[in-house]
Amino acid sequence: MEQANVKLTLAYEGTDFSGYQRQAQGERTVQGELEKAIVSLTEEEPKLIAAGRTDAGVHAKGQVVNFMTASRIPLPRWAAALNSRLPSDLIVEQAQAVPAAFHARYDAKAKTYQYLVSRRRWPDVFFRRFSYHYPYQLAVEKMQAGAAFLVGEHDFKGFAAAGSAVATTVRRLYRVDISEQDEELSFILAGNGFLYKMVRNIVGTLLLIGEEKMAPEMITEILATGQREKAGPTAPPQGLTLMMVEY
Amino acid sequence: MEQANVKLTLAYEGTDFSGYQRQAQGERTVQGELEKAIVSLTEEEPKLIAAGRTDAGVHAKGQVVNFMTASRIPLPRWAAALNSRLPSDLIVEQAQAVPAAFHARYDAKAKTYQYLVSRRRWPDVFFRRFSYHYPYQLAVEKMQAGAAFLVGEHDFKGFAAAGSAVATTVRRLYRVDISEQDEELSFILAGNGFLYKMVRNIVGTLLLIGEEKMAPEMITEILATGQREKAGPTAPPQGLTLMMVEY
Repeated sequence: MEQANVKLTLAYEGTDFSGYQRQAQGERTVQGELEKAIVSLTEEEPKLIAAGRTDAGVHAKGQVVNFMTASRIPLPRWAAALNSRLPSDLIVEQAQAVPAAFHARYDAKAKTYQYLVSRRRWPDVFFRRFSYHYPYQLAVEKMQAGAAFLVGEHDFKGFAAAGSAVATTVRRLYRVDISEQDEELSFILAGNGFLYKMVRNIVGTLLLIGEEKMAPEMITEILATGQREKAGPTAPPQGLTLMMVEY
Repeated sequence: MEQANVKLTLAYEGTDFSGYQRQAQGERTVQGELEKAIVSLTEEEPKLIAAGRTDAGVHAKGQVVNFMTASRIPLPRWAAALNSRLPSDLIVEQAQAVPAAFHARYDAKAKTYQYLVSRRRWPDVFFRRFSYHYPYQLAVEKMQAGAAFLVGEHDFKGFAAAGSAVATTVRRLYRVDISEQDEELSFILAGNGFLYKMVRNIVGTLLLIGEEKMAPEMITEILATGQREKAGPTAPPQGLTLMMVEY
C-alpha cells in the first residue's frame, strides 16, 4: 500500500491540555486528541512526530507534526475533515503533502516562541489565559541588554530544567527581542532548538533583571558556569506560545 | 450613618456568565458575583445600579455600576479588596467616589460597543471566545454604506428584539465604524442608548449586506417601517463587548 507523508500545522490553546505529548494515565493531551481524530477519519493508528513537545498550559500557533498514512483522502480535504472531529481548542491550520523523508523533529531548522507579560494593574480578562500577569515596574532597556548576551551559540545548561537528558546543551539563538506595547511586554525568541523549559527560564531571569534584582551581565556568568541556581525562576506556562517552526 | 456613592468600572469575560443581571434561579451572573464580593467585604447588601445589562456571553471592558455604602473602606483600597474576592473572569478596573445623585443608568450619556468578526478560514484558538467566526467573502464598502444610514437619530424599532418594553425606540447613534485588520473585522458603535439586542441585530444585518444578500439602502426601509423581519439575524453574543460608558 502506498504511503503518503502528511505534514500538519496546528494551533491550540494549551490551557486545558496536559501538554502536547500523550500521557500514560489518560490525561487530555494535544497528541491524544489529534490521534483520536485521525483514527476516526482514516481508521489507521497514526505514528505522530511533532517538531517539539509543549508543556501543560503552553499554547501553539504553529506547531508542526507529520505522519505516514495509506489514506486516499485528498490533501485539500484533510484540514476540514480533522477540524470537524477536533475540540474547539485544537485546530489544524494547514495540511500538506511532504516527501517521505520529511521528519517534523529532525528537520526543524528554527523555532520561534513568543512570551507575553502583562503589566496592567489588574489582569486583562481577555488575555489572562495567554499572558503572565506581572504588574511591576521593569527596566526594559536592562532586560534588552541582558537578552543581547544570549544571542549566538552558547551552552544553555544554566537555563535548562534539571534532569533533562540531551546529548548536548549547546544551542544557537538567532534573536531575543523584547518589545513594549501599552502595558504588554512581548518576548520573541528564535533559535535552532530549545532545551526543556529554556524559554521560560530565560524569561524568568530577564524579569529579575528588569526588576533590577540582577545585573544584565549575570547572563554571561550563567552561560559560562551552567549553574541553573544562578538563573531566575521559571516563568509560568500560560504566557508562552510556539509561534512557528521553520524547515 | 453617612453613605458614600461608589462607582465601579468593570471588565468581564461573558463566556461563563448568564449575563449581567441577577437571575431568580441562581444562575451565575456578573451582578450576583459582584454582590457576593461586596457583601463579603462590607457586610452590607448593596443595591447595584448598572449602566446597562449585557446578555449571556457578551463581554465588557468598561461596564459601570454604582451603589451606596456606609463602609469606611478608603476608596483606593476598594478595587484590590474586591478583586481578591472576585473570580478571574470579573475584574474591578477602577473604583471612584461620585456625588450622591450619580446614577449609572440614568446619567449615561453615551455607550460604545465593539463587535468582532473573524473571517479566518479556521477559528482562531485565542480569539474564539471573543469573536464571531464568519469565514465568508464580505463587501466591506457596501457594509460601510449601509452603516452610514444608521448614524443619527432614528426609530430603531426594526433592530430591537421583539417584546422589549421601552417608552421609546428612538435612539441616536454617533458612529457605526467598520474596519478591517488582516482577517478581522471590527464594528464600533457608539450611541446615546441601545435597545435590546440592537447591536447584534445591526451587525447581523450588515453581514447580510456584506454578503450581497441585501442592498445597503434596505437599512433606510428597516428604519422607516420598523419591521424586525426585514432586518438580518441576531449575530451571536461572543463577538460583542461593551467598551465604554460616558457620563
